[in-house]
Amino acid sequence: MAMYFVSRRFSGGSAIGALRCATFWRPYSTSFREERDTFGPILVPADKLWGAQTQRSLQNFDIGGERERMPEPIIRAFGILKKCAAKVNMEYGLDPAIGKAIMQAAQEVAEGKLNDHFPLVVWQTGSGTQSNMNANEVIANRAAEIIGHKRGEKFVHPNDHVNRSQSSNDTFPTVMHIAASMEINSRLIPNLKQLHTSLNSKVKYGIDRVSCTLPRMYQLAQGGTAVGTGLNTKKGFDAKIAAAVAEETSLPFVTAENKFEALAAHDAFVETSGALNTIAASLMKIANDIRLLGSGPRCGLGELILPENEPGSSIMPGKVNPTQCEAITMVCAQVMGNHVAVTVGGSNGHFELNVFKPMIANGLLNSLRLLGDASASFEKNCVRGIQANKERISKLLHESLMLVTSLNPKIGYDNAAAVAKKAHKEGSTLKEAALKLGVLTSEEFDNLVVPEKMIGPSD
Amino acid sequence: MAMYFVSRRFSGGSAIGALRCATFWRPYSTSFREERDTFGPILVPADKLWGAQTQRSLQNFDIGGERERMPEPIIRAFGILKKCAAKVNMEYGLDPAIGKAIMQAAQEVAEGKLNDHFPLVVWQTGSGTQSNMNANEVIANRAAEIIGHKRGEKFVHPNDHVNRSQSSNDTFPTVMHIAASMEINSRLIPNLKQLHTSLNSKVKYGIDRVSCTLPRMYQLAQGGTAVGTGLNTKKGFDAKIAAAVAEETSLPFVTAENKFEALAAHDAFVETSGALNTIAASLMKIANDIRLLGSGPRCGLGELILPENEPGSSIMPGKVNPTQCEAITMVCAQVMGNHVAVTVGGSNGHFELNVFKPMIANGLLNSLRLLGDASASFEKNCVRGIQANKERISKLLHESLMLVTSLNPKIGYDNAAAVAKKAHKEGSTLKEAALKLGVLTSEEFDNLVVPEKMIGPSD
Amino acid sequence: MAMYFVSRRFSGGSAIGALRCATFWRPYSTSFREERDTFGPILVPADKLWGAQTQRSLQNFDIGGERERMPEPIIRAFGILKKCAAKVNMEYGLDPAIGKAIMQAAQEVAEGKLNDHFPLVVWQTGSGTQSNMNANEVIANRAAEIIGHKRGEKFVHPNDHVNRSQSSNDTFPTVMHIAASMEINSRLIPNLKQLHTSLNSKVKYGIDRVSCTLPRMYQLAQGGTAVGTGLNTKKGFDAKIAAAVAEETSLPFVTAENKFEALAAHDAFVETSGALNTIAASLMKIANDIRLLGSGPRCGLGELILPENEPGSSIMPGKVNPTQCEAITMVCAQVMGNHVAVTVGGSNGHFELNVFKPMIANGLLNSLRLLGDASASFEKNCVRGIQANKERISKLLHESLMLVTSLNPKIGYDNAAAVAKKAHKEGSTLKEAALKLGVLTSEEFDNLVVPEKMIGPSD
Amino acid sequence: MAMYFVSRRFSGGSAIGALRCATFWRPYSTSFREERDTFGPILVPADKLWGAQTQRSLQNFDIGGERERMPEPIIRAFGILKKCAAKVNMEYGLDPAIGKAIMQAAQEVAEGKLNDHFPLVVWQTGSGTQSNMNANEVIANRAAEIIGHKRGEKFVHPNDHVNRSQSSNDTFPTVMHIAASMEINSRLIPNLKQLHTSLNSKVKYGIDRVSCTLPRMYQLAQGGTAVGTGLNTKKGFDAKIAAAVAEETSLPFVTAENKFEALAAHDAFVETSGALNTIAASLMKIANDIRLLGSGPRCGLGELILPENEPGSSIMPGKVNPTQCEAITMVCAQVMGNHVAVTVGGSNGHFELNVFKPMIANGLLNSLRLLGDASASFEKNCVRGIQANKERISKLLHESLMLVTSLNPKIGYDNAAAVAKKAHKEGSTLKEAALKLGVLTSEEFDNLVVPEKMIGPSD
Repeated sequence: MAMYFVSRRFSGGSAIGALRCATFWRPYSTSFREERDTFGPILVPADKLWGAQTQRSLQNFDIGGERERMPEPIIRAFGILKKCAAKVNMEYGLDPAIGKAIMQAAQEVAEGKLNDHFPLVVWQTGSGTQSNMNANEVIANRAAEIIGHKRGEKFVHPNDHVNRSQSSNDTFPTVMHIAASMEINSRLIPNLKQLHTSLNSKVKYGIDRVSCTLPRMYQLAQGGTAVGTGLNTKKGFDAKIAAAVAEETSLPFVTAENKFEALAAHDAFVETSGALNTIAASLMKIANDIRLLGSGPRCGLGELILPENEPGSSIMPGKVNPTQCEAITMVCAQVMGNHVAVTVGGSNGHFELNVFKPMIANGLLNSLRLLGDASASFEKNCVRGIQANKERISKLLHESLMLVTSLNPKIGYDNAAAVAKKAHKEGSTLKEAALKLGVLTSEEFDNLVVPEKMIGPSD
Repeated sequence: MAMYFVSRRFSGGSAIGALRCATFWRPYSTSFREERDTFGPILVPADKLWGAQTQRSLQNFDIGGERERMPEPIIRAFGILKKCAAKVNMEYGLDPAIGKAIMQAAQEVAEGKLNDHFPLVVWQTGSGTQSNMNANEVIANRAAEIIGHKRGEKFVHPNDHVNRSQSSNDTFPTVMHIAASMEINSRLIPNLKQLHTSLNSKVKYGIDRVSCTLPRMYQLAQGGTAVGTGLNTKKGFDAKIAAAVAEETSLPFVTAENKFEALAAHDAFVETSGALNTIAASLMKIANDIRLLGSGPRCGLGELILPENEPGSSIMPGKVNPTQCEAITMVCAQVMGNHVAVTVGGSNGHFELNVFKPMIANGLLNSLRLLGDASASFEKNCVRGIQANKERISKLLHESLMLVTSLNPKIGYDNAAAVAKKAHKEGSTLKEAALKLGVLTSEEFDNLVVPEKMIGPSD
Repeated sequence: MAMYFVSRRFSGGSAIGALRCATFWRPYSTSFREERDTFGPILVPADKLWGAQTQRSLQNFDIGGERERMPEPIIRAFGILKKCAAKVNMEYGLDPAIGKAIMQAAQEVAEGKLNDHFPLVVWQTGSGTQSNMNANEVIANRAAEIIGHKRGEKFVHPNDHVNRSQSSNDTFPTVMHIAASMEINSRLIPNLKQLHTSLNSKVKYGIDRVSCTLPRMYQLAQGGTAVGTGLNTKKGFDAKIAAAVAEETSLPFVTAENKFEALAAHDAFVETSGALNTIAASLMKIANDIRLLGSGPRCGLGELILPENEPGSSIMPGKVNPTQCEAITMVCAQVMGNHVAVTVGGSNGHFELNVFKPMIANGLLNSLRLLGDASASFEKNCVRGIQANKERISKLLHESLMLVTSLNPKIGYDNAAAVAKKAHKEGSTLKEAALKLGVLTSEEFDNLVVPEKMIGPSD
Repeated sequence: MAMYFVSRRFSGGSAIGALRCATFWRPYSTSFREERDTFGPILVPADKLWGAQTQRSLQNFDIGGERERMPEPIIRAFGILKKCAAKVNMEYGLDPAIGKAIMQAAQEVAEGKLNDHFPLVVWQTGSGTQSNMNANEVIANRAAEIIGHKRGEKFVHPNDHVNRSQSSNDTFPTVMHIAASMEINSRLIPNLKQLHTSLNSKVKYGIDRVSCTLPRMYQLAQGGTAVGTGLNTKKGFDAKIAAAVAEETSLPFVTAENKFEALAAHDAFVETSGALNTIAASLMKIANDIRLLGSGPRCGLGELILPENEPGSSIMPGKVNPTQCEAITMVCAQVMGNHVAVTVGGSNGHFELNVFKPMIANGLLNSLRLLGDASASFEKNCVRGIQANKERISKLLHESLMLVTSLNPKIGYDNAAAVAKKAHKEGSTLKEAALKLGVLTSEEFDNLVVPEKMIGPSD
């Protein structure tokens, strides 16, 4: 394996390329090795495990910077998938020495230990091929090292070994489903359940909604290979790999009924995004209500007292703001936006392949993360500590003109309206107005208008 | 009851009002009667059954014109609900003569016979109060006539009789749910099923998705009255009315578990809209694929032959277009847009009441109607008649360089790539390239590259 | 011209077709004539001016019903365009007798007199060809009648005469631009200006925003014919027709710089829709603020007093609601939804032609109409009559703990915070707290905390 | 200043807090100092410049992780603003020693040197107060160090000195405008111009559209302080600071006409986001067209030849994909989604303050970055290298049945249609069909049907 210093290798003309690479490699990469793919040789930072195709993507897709890297749950899911694929491929004849090394390397990816070797951004090829090759290359090089070979020699081959029986077109949808399912089960639902408990109910249907979408999320495309036919796999590969992933994750994954559909469309992601969109609409209203009911202390509605977590203003001393409500409503707006992005992506793509896969995955995973985290933060730092301002609520309740409603059954809607209007106009109590209008006696009024009784149907 | 000609009544100053009314009443309304509500008297066209509050809304909400009237399924659902309410109210003491007349009048509304008496637009009060009062007023006047009384006399009272034990805040959500459930069951699902049959599958999960949302759509708010407490109803009213609606519609409606939530939020509508959005994304891709695969006849992909239904161009003689694909993809875009409108509406509203109800109802019902109708049109006028252009498909299949994929397991990815690249560069066949490169014998090639066998996993 | 009764003509098998037609033709159409296009003969209601292609569209696109008809501004714009086209075509050799008859017939379309002869829905071919042919057919038949010929004889030919030098691909974009420009200038901007006046400012930039988009809206595609080349037109036709439309409408239309782009994309519509979306976001916040500041009378914020226009509740007597705020916020949500639909449509379509034209047109025109009408309604029925509740505002102002902000420059942020916190905790006034803490004298406090002075920068 | 090790300080109970901090502080933070705000003392990593309020936000808003940090252009804009504020404040009496140190520290922020000291995420308080305080605290501590004081001593005070005459409510909108304006001018427009050049036009109006929004983007809120009144600033402060920012950035910033609106709403962001949405719709269509016209090499449309940048498939050897088209269309979908998020955020917020500011800023800046970068990548790696497949285009052109269009003026639409249909049915040439039908002589046909002449209007 050749090692060069950057100044040398690129001195033949491509200073700009060197500069660009530098922005990705960070200052501490100073030496390079040569990797090669079907397009020929290319330099790769010596301390990185990735190969030629990853390097090309880095150079060709300088879009958005590090913040836009493929989400970590996708990287980890690649680890899980490649480990399971090696395991199943050994049943179909893959050399056990290589297979085991792949499994070990893939396990490291699954645990997040090799995150620094996954530099590619979401905004790459729409099939996710480059991230699949990134996983194949990193695992191949790492597996080779485990066995005792050098990086870049392809003793373990990214395509023929790590990607064996697979295509990006089925692996990428598969890791999308694995990643989303894990985030839903480990982050979103537990946090929503906690919030549901603290809120005494309101989020219950939200949990039902997202749970309802899981059966379709648990269907894995793996085994469809390039267009859904399963070309270059063996019979039974699809079911075995789904079973292996299920065992690895303890989630009930199965192989997709229709592999063509599983590659061509991402309806399951659009659907789950729709469930999150519904939860976002619901939480936005809840948080807005809490914010408004907590407005005050002296000039607002003031029916709720929210926890005070931090100074609220850089200019107004002593001000406290409903900051957790603000954070979660912003998250809800972003989830609604991501939902449109996912929908647009899901409705596009042509023929056998939807080619908005990384964007769709990124959108849903972002929504899952933000909604899960924000629910936890909102519950812990706000909802759990809310107190009712009983004194103020009681005052408002007894002043309300709407108590007049309980007169309807006795004196009719038109008379009751006359009472309310008179009280409003004259600034009097409802009782005074009713007595002046002569529609009720004092005793009748007192029997009918009892706020404490106005909380349910009558016998 | 006073009857006036418009020129007289309004001569005291309100010429503009008269003019405005005229645009709604149409030329054939020339005489008026006086109706009255808690705001006082107001003129109403003599040939119309509506009352004072409907008239005020007509004059105060001149937004969008007739196209924007409250959707017919909502009007019909009001007929069903008010009929059921009268039936249950009789159990709780409503005068049977009045109750039966209300039931008869409401039945006429349910059958669409009184549609002309529902002139209000969607863009009114956000609680739908004005449409609820429109229903109350029309049914009250019609019921009075049935008994032998005159319009406007309030022998049957819109609030005290027709709206008894009800509030707009629970009736409007209830008719929203009735209307949507009926449209889903009678229009959308049957049409999707037909399309699913013709497409050999692809829409199956779409049907599952919308069906999944029905349990929450079948929950009726009725009985919650103004804020969810059930004030001014009797115990058991909520369950009885849900049962009555279920019987009337043959759909499994039940009373909502949480009436406060049922009034305050419309998550069920956001959710169902999300299911339609997923179906729209799915159908847009399907229709786009059909359109592109049917492009031609001579310069496109030409793999499918679409039915020819009409001349396609006003300037290009003989041109035929994939018009049904175009119509349904436009519908899909509108459904996605309506979904955002419904989501924005669902996330708004404050405290005990979401006040975007008519917009939300209109958006979902529009999507249901368009998606149901367009699916039927697409199936009948396009999908059913599609033919595969087998000759062309066969030609393309055998020319494809992607057949090289089947060489991977034998010669490895890198060699196979070399074969494909050579064939592409030299304009030769894959076989010629493989033989020149010496990676396979002629027999080996012929055994491996058999397009007819490349449609599934190998043994 | 042959006349048949429906029962006879269709008895040969197409009972379903007859039934379907009946739903469009309405009961009063009982006789038919034969019309013909390149697909052959077809029956058309005798009392209607449309021809064969319109009839086919009616039968093939049974989507959404009458509410979904092509918007009236499009129909009227077709009248304007066809009149201008005939005028210019006469300069290039069109028989003057025919040309003048076309101009007269088109003028009737422009005035809305022939609306009943435009039955087609938005959900048709995506190029709008069918509505263009509807215009061509109606004008051809009407022009023939004017000259003394019968309907259906094609003495005036829909394609060769009325559509001369035109293609649907340039006429439909042209009428889209004419219709939108007229709605913006005659409905939206005047109503926004009135609202801007009443609101003392806030909508000013909204007017600027929509005005900014007009230069691109005034560019007409006419003259590009089928794909932008201008095939089958004469040199100069494009500029002459833009000039004619400009004269006819008194708006500064010009011919589009790039006809290919004008047919292939509808960026101008996406842009204008974006301007409306901005206005909608702006108005939603304004109307929400008014609604909340007007909440009360006794338990809300109560800083504004809104006009009372109608009874607000069917169950709560005397209740008055901020109904105009509710209507306009619903409109804003719909505008946001339409914007997404227009955007999705605008981003689709392939090659030389965007085929989401009718949907895009419908979405923008719907937004223009709703926003224009709702602005007028909101201004007239709400904003104009709002009063400040000065007594309450004054009380709230003097109680506010935020007055402490004016102490910052004197005693620093940290001390000022201590004062506010102490006052809040002890329920005291700020002054009492400041004196107890010894950070200010009574005179100093009184000099610093003067709400009336806290409305601007200091000298 | 006290320094503690984490294990000691938190041993008294807050192990979870310690754990959480650790995820933010990264392994290399092992010692802490005490900082303090009006809520009391709190531990901060000793090697970080931030103070108590930043630390509280870190602990209270554990949402989304590092990827969700406030975008760097906002941080840099804070540097610019705080530098300018110190400069202007010195004119109004700020101690020059402190003022100069603030300017120097702020300059370091503006240059990105202190990025690691800005750990807060977007999902915080909706006014951006915490990021404003983060800037105030970092600059105060750094300025103190410059003068020779220690961190945490508040020799330079975050509120009284760095934030002097400012409120989060005017600084955050100001940095939003500065950041967006800089990104538009330095990234988006130059890249779009390059793309416009390579595409020969199509993006021209897009550049106009975004440029049109700049006048409103150049209006700065600074000087409005907390609610728009300008309380606690001096007269003229607003204009001076806008001038200082203009000088610093070489962009024509001015002070906002209406400070209340500048704080309460973010219409300028919704508007600019709308312009990006239009560009996204436009680019999506362009990229889709290129992708489809480049499909092939043997079974697609194949009219364009796209540059080959990398291997396209992990399973299909030799496959090359239109990856740049895929990346930019994904970006376009995300921009559309961000636009909805920005719109929802812009339409929310109550009263004097929109509290979706960080989300709105993040959404627009993300769109600007992605669209700018993707345009550059698309231009450089795809558009610039596209070649027309002239051989194939010529073949398709001469085979096309649509050449029949040029016969219309001579033989009429109906005859021309007959020719096209006959040719299609019989698989013959148009000429053969025309001669068989006897509508033209061979010479006439040859004169009329000349594809090379069919590219414009005739004389």
